[in-house]
Amino acid sequence: MTDLRIPREDDDYAPTAIEGRQRHVREHTDSPLEHVASYSLDPTTLPGNVEHFLGVAQVPIGVAGPLLVDGEHAQGEFLVPLATTEGTLVASYNRGMKLCREAGGIRTTVLDDRMQRAPVFSFESAREARDFAAWLEENFDSIAAAAEETTSSGKLLDIQRFSVSKLLYTRFNYSTGDAAGQNMTGKATFAACAWIKQNYPRELHFLLEGQFATDKKTSVVNMLHTRGKRVVAEITLPAALVEEQMHVSTDKLYAARMRGQLGSIMSVTNNNGNHSANGLTAMFIATGQDVANVAESSALYGFSELLPNGDFYASVTLPSLIIATYGGGTGLATQRECLEVLGCYGSGKVLKLAEIMAATVLAGELSLGSAVVAEEWVEAHDKHGRNRP
Amino acid sequence: MTDLRIPREDDDYAPTAIEGRQRHVREHTDSPLEHVASYSLDPTTLPGNVEHFLGVAQVPIGVAGPLLVDGEHAQGEFLVPLATTEGTLVASYNRGMKLCREAGGIRTTVLDDRMQRAPVFSFESAREARDFAAWLEENFDSIAAAAEETTSSGKLLDIQRFSVSKLLYTRFNYSTGDAAGQNMTGKATFAACAWIKQNYPRELHFLLEGQFATDKKTSVVNMLHTRGKRVVAEITLPAALVEEQMHVSTDKLYAARMRGQLGSIMSVTNNNGNHSANGLTAMFIATGQDVANVAESSALYGFSELLPNGDFYASVTLPSLIIATYGGGTGLATQRECLEVLGCYGSGKVLKLAEIMAATVLAGELSLGSAVVAEEWVEAHDKHGRNRP
Amino acid sequence: MTDLRIPREDDDYAPTAIEGRQRHVREHTDSPLEHVASYSLDPTTLPGNVEHFLGVAQVPIGVAGPLLVDGEHAQGEFLVPLATTEGTLVASYNRGMKLCREAGGIRTTVLDDRMQRAPVFSFESAREARDFAAWLEENFDSIAAAAEETTSSGKLLDIQRFSVSKLLYTRFNYSTGDAAGQNMTGKATFAACAWIKQNYPRELHFLLEGQFATDKKTSVVNMLHTRGKRVVAEITLPAALVEEQMHVSTDKLYAARMRGQLGSIMSVTNNNGNHSANGLTAMFIATGQDVANVAESSALYGFSELLPNGDFYASVTLPSLIIATYGGGTGLATQRECLEVLGCYGSGKVLKLAEIMAATVLAGELSLGSAVVAEEWVEAHDKHGRNRP
Amino acid sequence: MTDLRIPREDDDYAPTAIEGRQRHVREHTDSPLEHVASYSLDPTTLPGNVEHFLGVAQVPIGVAGPLLVDGEHAQGEFLVPLATTEGTLVASYNRGMKLCREAGGIRTTVLDDRMQRAPVFSFESAREARDFAAWLEENFDSIAAAAEETTSSGKLLDIQRFSVSKLLYTRFNYSTGDAAGQNMTGKATFAACAWIKQNYPRELHFLLEGQFATDKKTSVVNMLHTRGKRVVAEITLPAALVEEQMHVSTDKLYAARMRGQLGSIMSVTNNNGNHSANGLTAMFIATGQDVANVAESSALYGFSELLPNGDFYASVTLPSLIIATYGGGTGLATQRECLEVLGCYGSGKVLKLAEIMAATVLAGELSLGSAVVAEEWVEAHDKHGRNRP
Repeated sequence: MTDLRIPREDDDYAPTAIEGRQRHVREHTDSPLEHVASYSLDPTTLPGNVEHFLGVAQVPIGVAGPLLVDGEHAQGEFLVPLATTEGTLVASYNRGMKLCREAGGIRTTVLDDRMQRAPVFSFESAREARDFAAWLEENFDSIAAAAEETTSSGKLLDIQRFSVSKLLYTRFNYSTGDAAGQNMTGKATFAACAWIKQNYPRELHFLLEGQFATDKKTSVVNMLHTRGKRVVAEITLPAALVEEQMHVSTDKLYAARMRGQLGSIMSVTNNNGNHSANGLTAMFIATGQDVANVAESSALYGFSELLPNGDFYASVTLPSLIIATYGGGTGLATQRECLEVLGCYGSGKVLKLAEIMAATVLAGELSLGSAVVAEEWVEAHDKHGRNRP
Repeated sequence: MTDLRIPREDDDYAPTAIEGRQRHVREHTDSPLEHVASYSLDPTTLPGNVEHFLGVAQVPIGVAGPLLVDGEHAQGEFLVPLATTEGTLVASYNRGMKLCREAGGIRTTVLDDRMQRAPVFSFESAREARDFAAWLEENFDSIAAAAEETTSSGKLLDIQRFSVSKLLYTRFNYSTGDAAGQNMTGKATFAACAWIKQNYPRELHFLLEGQFATDKKTSVVNMLHTRGKRVVAEITLPAALVEEQMHVSTDKLYAARMRGQLGSIMSVTNNNGNHSANGLTAMFIATGQDVANVAESSALYGFSELLPNGDFYASVTLPSLIIATYGGGTGLATQRECLEVLGCYGSGKVLKLAEIMAATVLAGELSLGSAVVAEEWVEAHDKHGRNRP
Repeated sequence: MTDLRIPREDDDYAPTAIEGRQRHVREHTDSPLEHVASYSLDPTTLPGNVEHFLGVAQVPIGVAGPLLVDGEHAQGEFLVPLATTEGTLVASYNRGMKLCREAGGIRTTVLDDRMQRAPVFSFESAREARDFAAWLEENFDSIAAAAEETTSSGKLLDIQRFSVSKLLYTRFNYSTGDAAGQNMTGKATFAACAWIKQNYPRELHFLLEGQFATDKKTSVVNMLHTRGKRVVAEITLPAALVEEQMHVSTDKLYAARMRGQLGSIMSVTNNNGNHSANGLTAMFIATGQDVANVAESSALYGFSELLPNGDFYASVTLPSLIIATYGGGTGLATQRECLEVLGCYGSGKVLKLAEIMAATVLAGELSLGSAVVAEEWVEAHDKHGRNRP
Repeated sequence: MTDLRIPREDDDYAPTAIEGRQRHVREHTDSPLEHVASYSLDPTTLPGNVEHFLGVAQVPIGVAGPLLVDGEHAQGEFLVPLATTEGTLVASYNRGMKLCREAGGIRTTVLDDRMQRAPVFSFESAREARDFAAWLEENFDSIAAAAEETTSSGKLLDIQRFSVSKLLYTRFNYSTGDAAGQNMTGKATFAACAWIKQNYPRELHFLLEGQFATDKKTSVVNMLHTRGKRVVAEITLPAALVEEQMHVSTDKLYAARMRGQLGSIMSVTNNNGNHSANGLTAMFIATGQDVANVAESSALYGFSELLPNGDFYASVTLPSLIIATYGGGTGLATQRECLEVLGCYGSGKVLKLAEIMAATVLAGELSLGSAVVAEEWVEAHDKHGRNRP
């Protein structure tokens, strides 16, 4: 057991520290670590992003587009970098973007923007919990002040309260600027809870997270009440264009969508669409997002209509898109470059990024949705994907 | 619009093609693509993994461990490569692995292994749909034969049937060897449906996917009936060890877990644990998995007990862990090396990988779970994470 | 405290026992119990139905219909007794029945029929639980024999297995003839578990119910896998008829339904229809069903289509309709009479009753669905309902 | 077809009208309608409660108790009338009430009280929907005034907004006094929507119900945000008392509960308890509630703790208990008498009734929960229930 302990140094991002770990891994495993040890990023940029740094994963990036967006923050054509190892993915999104471009582009709208931490408070009885809920409301201003002392950009918007038994679950909702804000809200809420503990006249116990913000986990409460950005992408596709480009009639497309929707109701998913996780994950890896948030961010409400003239209205609403253009991994070498490709690096860009992502998701939904109906799906995977096994 | 069209060549993975696209992106955006264009992987390995190849995302890898696993496929200590840009993540998993190692290691068990495609069949009436369901059962052997002609390693295990209205939703369940199997099962099920369409005496319509396999989307049906691997990791932690290492008593740890569990019931998540998506995503990126599957694979059932002597039994069950050690992105440059670090590259290794992943998840659950109770969580993020905003 | 103890006698259904309780209640409360004590049923029929008998609730019955059913078990026109105190309910169902009758009647189909009890088995580890799951499969015939010794009409169809942690949750599925079967399956499964405990070579612990049959509680697993009867009612309504009778166009009706469906996806219900519980509850009370089962039985999957010619296809699927025509409350005085009104009293009638109930539900869905669109809903309640407060 | 048309008269509650319908039913079916036609209630009280009145269902009432309640509205001992045909039900609740009485009684707390109607508004685009959401907030006072003109007791508390695609789903939340309030809120919201339509400067379409209040259907949104009364019942049971009365140890009781809870997570129910629907349905029928609301009202969050000294803390939270003590069926003959038994008839009594119902539910949970562990469940049903088939 002793042998395998991972070596560390005081300056753990120094070349000797990194090489020491690489040597350790090579010695104790069958891996040459040749490619993992090949990178152009500067390891001194990594504190705050990774510990026990060993090297990098090289994830291939394909570019899709141009994606034509008619947003309030994103306007015009975009080339979209997608980091993936899944054959067909880039081609499929690209195909959807072409369809949408020829239909005049995708309209995008950000509906809401909030990030939360969700402490749970415990009491001796339901009545004490109810009393505390009232106290919380009365003291909101002081609590907000305590929370906001820890952050320059975060604002406490409100505190939602959900009572059960002798417990009070809460959601402290914040606006967080261009950061995703999970750490910021954690710190601010911790300060708020410290203030509460000190000022509440009676005894209480709290946990900083009661699983009501469901960080890294999809949930109904987040889908209903927004976590991160709530953003819509919409388009109306002419029937003739769909027929020409996707080789399906819009009524068949609609009938298929209705069957898929009933399927998602019965199987009980967080997503009545097709594959939002594909495009989002590829953009998340490329642009330095916290990729684990795909678990939450890929949640989707799809809504479509077959119009009387046969045209097809399609929309996706992403209710819990957790992204940043500042902080986290967004400033690392390739990640920053990919944000720059989208014109989304740095302050004041996060809603633009949200709109581009939503538009990308919609393009991908239409592409795969059509392929399934046209029975071109398996064929496409045979051409682009690895069907070897 | 014309200007932004992405250039392509016949040999689209040739240096000229790649450079052409890089030039195109540099011209039309503000990105230098310096780091994106720096990679050691060989682009001729990329057909089948990405289209419109532009360069790579360099995702930093930290190494955690050693992780002591007492599995049926994974035995002994492992160094775990985690590709992430989230500060604290590697440190947190590392801490959990240390705790579990000192408790004697994590026992892992694979319970089930199946991958599916889920066609929906449409009829004129519910009675016709019911007749077809019966026919499907009677003709299972022929259908399986048709499906299996398309694959050397896949086997059709059974066809689940879910009736509603005049529709029949199905799940064609396969074993898929070391591949994740989504493409394999797509192709096989398409062949099966072609056979069905040809041989069923009456008219029917089908869609290859009715959202009952919920590819790239988490769902109750997949959590109940397994998609990919169903794998458990378990440990019993001595009370004194938890106190010493994590600075919490096991009864507080348990009380916190019960509050978290009620929180997840009320918020309605697919995961009554803490943050499985963190460790899984980092391993998925490192080892060339289809990272979009994190949406499904991070689903988790946690179950813990406070034993009469104060020891703490903890377990995680991952009901829909979709992974491969062969095919997809597993053979790419850094991805293969990371699989080699785990001794999991190639044929016959996928259950070993499943066990290591489940053990990693459990270690991470215990680490974060304890930190929340010990109120060390915010502090850890202040130290390792980027709390700048 | 002593004073309020409820008096009991050896023959607790004898007049003196009943009168003793009535006197006791009158003495200790402000209630005259005049009407509660007025009934025509014979109390000696009540053992097995109620303890501490005090009198009856008189629930008014309205009759709706005729309901025209084109089923496999129910054929022709039916007068449907509905026991309710909610104004408008009978009128609304009646209106829907008229519409459906003029459209040629409702086609009904029973898709499945099974009742279950769901023991959970506990072990020391996940591997032991997995071993037991295999043993269960191997010993199915003996287990079925042990179960079936306790019942003349129940048959054990299969045992579903859901593994998690060191536990195995099961569903013992039975066919139960004309009884609802909850007691029958409880008794049979208890016998099966006793046999298992005696014959399984290693230690195990079980609980007869692990909340995987979710008796008296709606659940996804019951909706997917059927509890009680799975029954469909379908109809195709001519556009002109809908316009004439319901004062709405079918495209508006369809658009409204699509909004309602998205609403039910977002609010996360067990029912994407309108008000199945209304009709079912009224029939359950009238016909002596276990009314608490409305919690489960009102679960509904609705599926509708707007046909190219403007006609409207509508269907409801009730996946967990728990009913009986024998046993329970079906033989009591008024309950039996109401079953007789439907021609559904006694053996061999339960599928007929299932079809009539599904048809009734569909009629009610169409009536309320139209009223909401035509904005006649509030008006109807003003006329028939009690809007006094 | 003509023959079966149900006869009606101008005064449809007059003896001749009723007898005409009874004759009609007797002629066209095999039912004597002897008992259905036997009732003591006065049919002239029925307008507003039922149409096409035919007679009554006589549902046997058993009385359980005394139930010792330590509430804020209900104080002391109560005799609880339960209308049911299910053997064992009254006995089981009675047993639980005895246990709780000897433990000092059940503490009850009403946490919230609100009823809603949920119109959905449709627009041309997501941006228009977002604009309208803002307008709605700005004009709240006028909207509330318009709504409240239709009712003397209802108050519009707030309007929750849930955006998706080009739609805005809302929940108009009201306090409704002693009425359940579904009709009141329907009428008030219709008036509010009429005002909105007239005053909103742009075009909009609305449906009075978008399935976000999920009337007669259980839903997550109602469980999170309350529909009707949100009420808790709590108790701490001494270990020795549980052992003595229920023949189980509290640690076994707790272990069973944890298995049941995981079962309900996996099976995905609206209720992690045992059988709340049983007691609630029986009280709903007895006291003239809208029994169809059992579908919603039986939703339950259970939370229990095994205390260090072995005592057992148990609680139930009913988040969507829809009841009235005024209006609806509460004033009918037997229904009013049963409310009087509880001291809950008329104005100002509805919170008292809520507390008694929650306490009853808790007593029933503890009784069945113990019986399952003590394996006395099947036995009890053999004794009291009808196991004939």
